[in-house]
Amino acid sequence: MSDRPHTPLLDQVTRPADLKRFSDAQLTQLAGELRAETVSAVSVTGGHLGAGLGVVELTVALHAVFDTPRDKVIWDVGHQCYPHKILTERRDRIRTLRMKDGLSGFTKRSESPYDPFGAAHSSTSISAALGFAVARDLGGVTPEGLGDAIAVIGDGSMSAGMAFEAMNNAGHLKKRLIVILNDNEMSIAPPVGALSNYLSRLYAEEPFQELKAAAKGAVSLLPEPFREGAKRAKEMLKGMAVGGTLFEELGFSYIGPIDGHDMGQLLPVLRTVKARATGPILLHVLTKKGKGYAPAERARDRGHATAKFDVVTGEQKKAPSNAPSYTAVFGKALVDQAARDDKIVAVTAAMPDGTGLNLFAERYPSRCFDVGIAEQHGVTFSAALAAGGLKPFCAMYSTFLQRGYDQVVHDVAIQRLPVRFAIDRAGLVGADGATHAGSFDIAYLANLPGMVVMAAADEAELVHMVATAAAHDDGPIAFRYPRGEGVGVEMPELGKVLEIGKGRMIQKGARVALLSFGTRLTEVQKAAEALAARGITPTIADARFAKPLDRDLILNLAHDHEALITIEEGAVGGFGSHVAQLLADEGVFDHGLKFRSMVLPDIFIDQSSPADMYAVAGMNAPQIEAKVLDVLGIGRIGEKRA
Amino acid sequence: MSDRPHTPLLDQVTRPADLKRFSDAQLTQLAGELRAETVSAVSVTGGHLGAGLGVVELTVALHAVFDTPRDKVIWDVGHQCYPHKILTERRDRIRTLRMKDGLSGFTKRSESPYDPFGAAHSSTSISAALGFAVARDLGGVTPEGLGDAIAVIGDGSMSAGMAFEAMNNAGHLKKRLIVILNDNEMSIAPPVGALSNYLSRLYAEEPFQELKAAAKGAVSLLPEPFREGAKRAKEMLKGMAVGGTLFEELGFSYIGPIDGHDMGQLLPVLRTVKARATGPILLHVLTKKGKGYAPAERARDRGHATAKFDVVTGEQKKAPSNAPSYTAVFGKALVDQAARDDKIVAVTAAMPDGTGLNLFAERYPSRCFDVGIAEQHGVTFSAALAAGGLKPFCAMYSTFLQRGYDQVVHDVAIQRLPVRFAIDRAGLVGADGATHAGSFDIAYLANLPGMVVMAAADEAELVHMVATAAAHDDGPIAFRYPRGEGVGVEMPELGKVLEIGKGRMIQKGARVALLSFGTRLTEVQKAAEALAARGITPTIADARFAKPLDRDLILNLAHDHEALITIEEGAVGGFGSHVAQLLADEGVFDHGLKFRSMVLPDIFIDQSSPADMYAVAGMNAPQIEAKVLDVLGIGRIGEKRA
Repeated sequence: MSDRPHTPLLDQVTRPADLKRFSDAQLTQLAGELRAETVSAVSVTGGHLGAGLGVVELTVALHAVFDTPRDKVIWDVGHQCYPHKILTERRDRIRTLRMKDGLSGFTKRSESPYDPFGAAHSSTSISAALGFAVARDLGGVTPEGLGDAIAVIGDGSMSAGMAFEAMNNAGHLKKRLIVILNDNEMSIAPPVGALSNYLSRLYAEEPFQELKAAAKGAVSLLPEPFREGAKRAKEMLKGMAVGGTLFEELGFSYIGPIDGHDMGQLLPVLRTVKARATGPILLHVLTKKGKGYAPAERARDRGHATAKFDVVTGEQKKAPSNAPSYTAVFGKALVDQAARDDKIVAVTAAMPDGTGLNLFAERYPSRCFDVGIAEQHGVTFSAALAAGGLKPFCAMYSTFLQRGYDQVVHDVAIQRLPVRFAIDRAGLVGADGATHAGSFDIAYLANLPGMVVMAAADEAELVHMVATAAAHDDGPIAFRYPRGEGVGVEMPELGKVLEIGKGRMIQKGARVALLSFGTRLTEVQKAAEALAARGITPTIADARFAKPLDRDLILNLAHDHEALITIEEGAVGGFGSHVAQLLADEGVFDHGLKFRSMVLPDIFIDQSSPADMYAVAGMNAPQIEAKVLDVLGIGRIGEKRA
Repeated sequence: MSDRPHTPLLDQVTRPADLKRFSDAQLTQLAGELRAETVSAVSVTGGHLGAGLGVVELTVALHAVFDTPRDKVIWDVGHQCYPHKILTERRDRIRTLRMKDGLSGFTKRSESPYDPFGAAHSSTSISAALGFAVARDLGGVTPEGLGDAIAVIGDGSMSAGMAFEAMNNAGHLKKRLIVILNDNEMSIAPPVGALSNYLSRLYAEEPFQELKAAAKGAVSLLPEPFREGAKRAKEMLKGMAVGGTLFEELGFSYIGPIDGHDMGQLLPVLRTVKARATGPILLHVLTKKGKGYAPAERARDRGHATAKFDVVTGEQKKAPSNAPSYTAVFGKALVDQAARDDKIVAVTAAMPDGTGLNLFAERYPSRCFDVGIAEQHGVTFSAALAAGGLKPFCAMYSTFLQRGYDQVVHDVAIQRLPVRFAIDRAGLVGADGATHAGSFDIAYLANLPGMVVMAAADEAELVHMVATAAAHDDGPIAFRYPRGEGVGVEMPELGKVLEIGKGRMIQKGARVALLSFGTRLTEVQKAAEALAARGITPTIADARFAKPLDRDLILNLAHDHEALITIEEGAVGGFGSHVAQLLADEGVFDHGLKFRSMVLPDIFIDQSSPADMYAVAGMNAPQIEAKVLDVLGIGRIGEKRA
């Protein structure tokens, strides 16, 4: 266990109301203690460190000035919410972050009234805050009351279209609404796009425009303790209401930029905003991701996400890996294909590292496009790259591809354009929990006409699927693979092109056939070993394709066995449903078949290890074994009792 | 048949290359002829009139100045593409617009090389144009070559987040790219949002800023015929490169606004852009929707969409309706509920008329929110309205809800917030074709934990479902209904609250059970009448719910019948798949059941009447009858031959 930091003021805080007793100087000290506690907590849990460290002062200031939970503070994405959790009745559980039965790594409504709107995907906070503001003005009711609505959103998140849609609507509705732009020039990756350049210019161009009357008036309203700092306050407010910023064109009053690590700026500005705001206000706050913890400040990703670490050295304690990650295997396989085909290009939505495209970007910078947090654009942009004769690999997490779903349907599938979707984080993902689960992509892709949908059973299969996708020019193709390490199989030198719509036999057996789609194959094989001890040898096949289905394989399996069980890392509506549709159409059920489809259950599964989450889902080897025994009418539980 | 207009110049044009022979004066005359031909064509086909009339001059100017199809002109949405189709080898078929086997009402890649990227949903054009620009610079190949990439996008479409994402990316990449903002202050409904206000200010505020050197230089480049008009040209270019617009903040050179109906402005400006553009350029063109045809100009919607009409009077020839439309029934039912519950609010994404919310907006303006073309924001905004204690009805077409899918998952379903989704245009929609089909919502909603999914079998059922949704406070609920008229059933005074997860028996029969989800029920009943003549009386049930399923009903139907057939207006993965999953889990297939699931086929179905489209889909009464006979082993076709 790490030594706990000395936190005399923080020890007096259970909830934000406790901050009201503190002087501004004490709040400044408290911020320091909160930073130390955050570092200490994440050192034992791992998790998102840099974002929280960047908003320690802002967190203290917001809770000191506003009246949470009546006032709704909505943290965009939520990576930065650990200090917020410490101040809001959850310090006692902060060292359970991202663990089974512990605190979520994101804000979560079911966890605390101080989390009025959960997050995890980016750029939702302004829409949410606007909803609360409207509800407040229309007499909406919540147990905690309804006061101010405050969105805290990073500059990277601001680049998503959804944030723009919300700004556009908020500027139109003119409700009192506070948007805090947390500008740290760093989301998960360095931000890209014209907006980012614009924000840099906002504070790079000196001198600022003239202070206008409104801003001058605001300074005179500063509370007593800051009168003596009026000159500095005047400086910090000089951008107020001067007009001409992009945000003002959208109907917001713009204040800033101010130093987000200086409580002497944050507190009076927030107090002034609270006292004077009428319509929508955008407060531009400059912060530094990883602030105040040297190893994070030094890191290339500013300590974005970390394993457990040593507080003094910052050294991370990662378990040694047995096999390369699927992400890394994809990245390397794509580079290998790209070396042989200069038409291959790659698209990521602000996740070059997370998708493994960093390697591709390094090798082929002019062929790699980070479009920012902009999945809608990313998908349609990929469609046009394909229409223009290139071979785009659009690499997105399953859960984030949901953001571009209409574009997959409308721009890719209907036009039958050969976009290659590399879908990482398929299935349950572990510590990021339900919001990041890749549960629905098989269903939402496999019913699109003309779409090819593959899942890799292991990391060698993934290499083949990259090759298959590169070679597939007749319409769109998707391949999915999970978070985490592969299973350690021997790797091919170069991928081979798989025959579209053909699965493979793994093991021939009798009575029951297990048809796997994706990486549950390993668990299926473990289950088969256990069954062998009982004299049962199931047939095992890897479907490889959810679409088109391998009709011959499936119908033969059904014909040759008493029972057929499909398994996939996805919700109902996907692979198993397509198999059922085929079996029904072909009349296979007419005369009886013990058919079962093992899919993710109808619940959102909270964070834990992936293995634990699959246990909850009932999809690990013992549960597959039990399913086989149950289908065959062999009472395993009864036997054990005997 | 209408009298054809006199079009001597247009008669010389088959393709855009033919325009190169014309003088600028002739091009102006041609525009007039093209307008008359457009009015004439739409008078016999019906369709989207106002948008095309607004861009007649722009269409001529683009094709005269640029080299299509090598240069890629991408019309956003595509409602405005009829004049474009007339000029691009399709005049001979222009009077088949939106008809079976005729021209699509939108641009379509498979229809013409002059349609480099199809559309129908809004705001995709900048992403597409950027893709072509990048492909061009990376050596991409298309049969027609790859030249300039030009997006033509309306001011309404510009409000969608996706357009912002694309601008942000384009401003960053700095490729030569031309975006034409077709600003007519009118999409389908009047535009809303802060951006719209901003655009108005751009040309309302006189005087414009000083003409800068770059703009002056541009004027001197004007081609000869326009030298004499240099003063006017100078005027029109005065906005060029003066800085400070929102678009320039995003890295675009801004030109405009210019008069989009004045060829004397359009031609020289486009020529200058073509000659001089290096990076991304935004050309702001002011147009008038419905321009030049008095009945359209006078109409509230500027002739947005029209039935066949008399060219002289503008009078539309609508077939008399037998029953109210589902859309109107929804609108009235919601108003009736809202009168009894002041917590009910409504959200539309730029479709107040299309969704039937116009009635609600009129009665309860402060409780109705048109968020603009912004489905992502609209869904999350609705989620927060629910979190704030209101009862939001989020009314969107099935196909457009795809735009907000991630928000449905992440912000609504995971948080179990009681958003009521009113899903219009479920199933096949007729003249709008494949891009507007509502085929996937059952599948993409019914596998979300905690979601309730209903479909109305007729317009009275829809009224009950509105009441049911209003009363349902434990998580999200969705109800779907088709485009078009109801079936003429007697209407209830006020809807009754249905029991969640319970279907209803329509008719008790024997041997085969038909379980319908949605409005195919009418066809099922027709099929039953035909079957009765053969002595077969099927059991008929209306499932009402795809989620939660009525387990008792389904298991009893399976138990009591030799065969069970489900039918739904949706793709595989939806209702039938959930029924199959239940039957499999319960072991019903183990001993044999003739189960069939009638779903939309695995193709995108081109426009026609909905009835014709359902014939293609194999889901009309005769095909249901055939399915029953086939399942029961009764050879209908053989009998007929005999």
